[in-house]
Amino acid sequence: MFFTEESLLKIPCERFTVTYHLYGTAADARLKAEDICVEQTVEFPAELVPTGPIHDHILGRIECFEPTYEEGVYKAVISYPVDGATTELTQLLNMMFGNISIKPGIVLVDFNLPESLIRHFKGPRFGVSGLRELLGVPERPLLFTALKPMGLKNEELAQLAYTFAKGGIDIIKDDHGLADQPFCPFEERVRLVAAAIEKANMETGGKSIYMPNISGPCHLIHERAKLAKALGAGALMVSPGLVGWDTMRMLAEDDELALPIISHPALLGSYVLGNSGIAHGALFGKIARLAGADGSIYPNFGGRFSFSREACKDIAHKCSESFGGLKPIFPCPGGGMSLESIPTSLAVYGKNLMFLIGGGLFKAGPNLEENCKYFKGLVEGE
Amino acid sequence: MFFTEESLLKIPCERFTVTYHLYGTAADARLKAEDICVEQTVEFPAELVPTGPIHDHILGRIECFEPTYEEGVYKAVISYPVDGATTELTQLLNMMFGNISIKPGIVLVDFNLPESLIRHFKGPRFGVSGLRELLGVPERPLLFTALKPMGLKNEELAQLAYTFAKGGIDIIKDDHGLADQPFCPFEERVRLVAAAIEKANMETGGKSIYMPNISGPCHLIHERAKLAKALGAGALMVSPGLVGWDTMRMLAEDDELALPIISHPALLGSYVLGNSGIAHGALFGKIARLAGADGSIYPNFGGRFSFSREACKDIAHKCSESFGGLKPIFPCPGGGMSLESIPTSLAVYGKNLMFLIGGGLFKAGPNLEENCKYFKGLVEGE
Repeated sequence: MFFTEESLLKIPCERFTVTYHLYGTAADARLKAEDICVEQTVEFPAELVPTGPIHDHILGRIECFEPTYEEGVYKAVISYPVDGATTELTQLLNMMFGNISIKPGIVLVDFNLPESLIRHFKGPRFGVSGLRELLGVPERPLLFTALKPMGLKNEELAQLAYTFAKGGIDIIKDDHGLADQPFCPFEERVRLVAAAIEKANMETGGKSIYMPNISGPCHLIHERAKLAKALGAGALMVSPGLVGWDTMRMLAEDDELALPIISHPALLGSYVLGNSGIAHGALFGKIARLAGADGSIYPNFGGRFSFSREACKDIAHKCSESFGGLKPIFPCPGGGMSLESIPTSLAVYGKNLMFLIGGGLFKAGPNLEENCKYFKGLVEGE
Repeated sequence: MFFTEESLLKIPCERFTVTYHLYGTAADARLKAEDICVEQTVEFPAELVPTGPIHDHILGRIECFEPTYEEGVYKAVISYPVDGATTELTQLLNMMFGNISIKPGIVLVDFNLPESLIRHFKGPRFGVSGLRELLGVPERPLLFTALKPMGLKNEELAQLAYTFAKGGIDIIKDDHGLADQPFCPFEERVRLVAAAIEKANMETGGKSIYMPNISGPCHLIHERAKLAKALGAGALMVSPGLVGWDTMRMLAEDDELALPIISHPALLGSYVLGNSGIAHGALFGKIARLAGADGSIYPNFGGRFSFSREACKDIAHKCSESFGGLKPIFPCPGGGMSLESIPTSLAVYGKNLMFLIGGGLFKAGPNLEENCKYFKGLVEGE
């Protein structure tokens, strides 16, 4: 009525697929799947979608629909045209989950991108092997801690960093709440902390690196990243929930910057709580990896957050499974972990992980450097 | 043990407050409130937080804790130090909800920023009055529609835009799924659609404007915004869930760009579904306004999404209530609205709203221009 078939552009046929879990009865779930096909593409009254290329190629298509092992949860695999997603991460995320993020009972659990789409994504620059090489740690789990609490002066943070490095921690990051506060300004912090770690490295022969938090205003973030590198930072922490996934992708692809990047889950938790959102592995594993993270921080099971052991295994699996040639990355479980939990975590994850222990290091005893060495011993001893 | 009181920086005392709804028994909710105070600031074992300034000023503080009208839901007002939030939107969001986004049963429902903090935010450039002046519409609700379905060529989208403008629609936007696809490349689309609307304006004496979707890669978004303006776009649509809230703030503050900005809810829905996240009004109203949106799109009650009438009223209220001198903005309810729903919406919202009707305009009859005029008549007739 409004469009003529011959006027419509010919759309190439290649497709990518997204797997969703849909909550409800079989009939409800089927309706949800059909609705997703429309909502994520033409967003138009189905009866008015013109026949021809738009109907045949643009509309989402249910490739598979079946019950899961869980009562009241169905799995739908839906395909979309590669050309609809362009070569841009923002639009890919939009097609996978943009509008349906607003509809209840839909969880994105996985996605598969054909070579023609994934070749536009460089993914992690370092990955597991690159980060191991950089740090000179061929096999054991990496040791990762945070400078805290917020409110310390930069001189105190630098002193802490020196102690951590002396104790053999591989990566020393800012707590994610450290930004550019008047009581610990960014530039001074990076200068002092990087120098303190360098001093410790000279004394120990170690290769510890500093990973400042560069999450901040969009017009300053690239500048902060370059400044951090110039001042001796060895890696960057980015919170994609605060600055956008594509900002991390841009930083990871910058050949002049060329620093490892670890993603932090701040403001992303709402996606994984409840029956509407994005599954743990898809979000903290696969999307983080696609967006260039070399490691992904998330709260471990058994800590002060709520993730299940299964959810954490899902993340670790998505960090390392085959994914269009993108490098495997480190799962970085943290969040209130104690030294006592290390053996359990090693049993679940194996050796390719970064243990993020912050407050737990302080709790283990009065001598922080000794606590770090004890941490290292626990990890090496397994 | 690790810190000495005298070495700690003196922290200024000014604070901002965040209001949370906490789910559970009174005891559970109280524990959640106490946990938030630590998690959102020092993220450190409470017993090791040094006394003095960090304990007294950095730690979150429960200012109010009380039951709500709803069984099993408690309200906590928690204050944080202004200096912790810096002057940056990213860090403010981080302090308000960063890590606790990962903890279940916590909903951010409101926040209040003192003058010393909010003065760093310019907020909306146009707001309700500026947008009304630009469009020459002093009183009635604004008419808003979208170019769709995805898969049309740019020439067809331009023809649609021409028809919408002839029919008197005030703002004609890209469907949020239109990016820079090979079948409708961005630059050509903006050129053709802006020209088509200009032609219609010349014929009608109207002031319709084109609002392209500029959500895209972070290294291109500013460029796309400037290109859009140069090619005749009259406003910009941004999806903060895809590109980051601060990217919208940056675009809104750009004095050379100086275009109205409307936010789209793509990928943000997960925050408002369930008992963990950010309340509708706080997210789509208050945060969007703080981040510079002149209007905020969200799914209306009674459409194809799930928002309740109360949730929509909450959004509209937060768009217009007093907020540190920031301009009131337009609630833009959409999402499967029909022309028949207009009287109900007018009764709920009053006149300061933008009606976003997309597919509904096509469904109303075979002549699209007449449908637009009918839409306008309905809105003016009330």
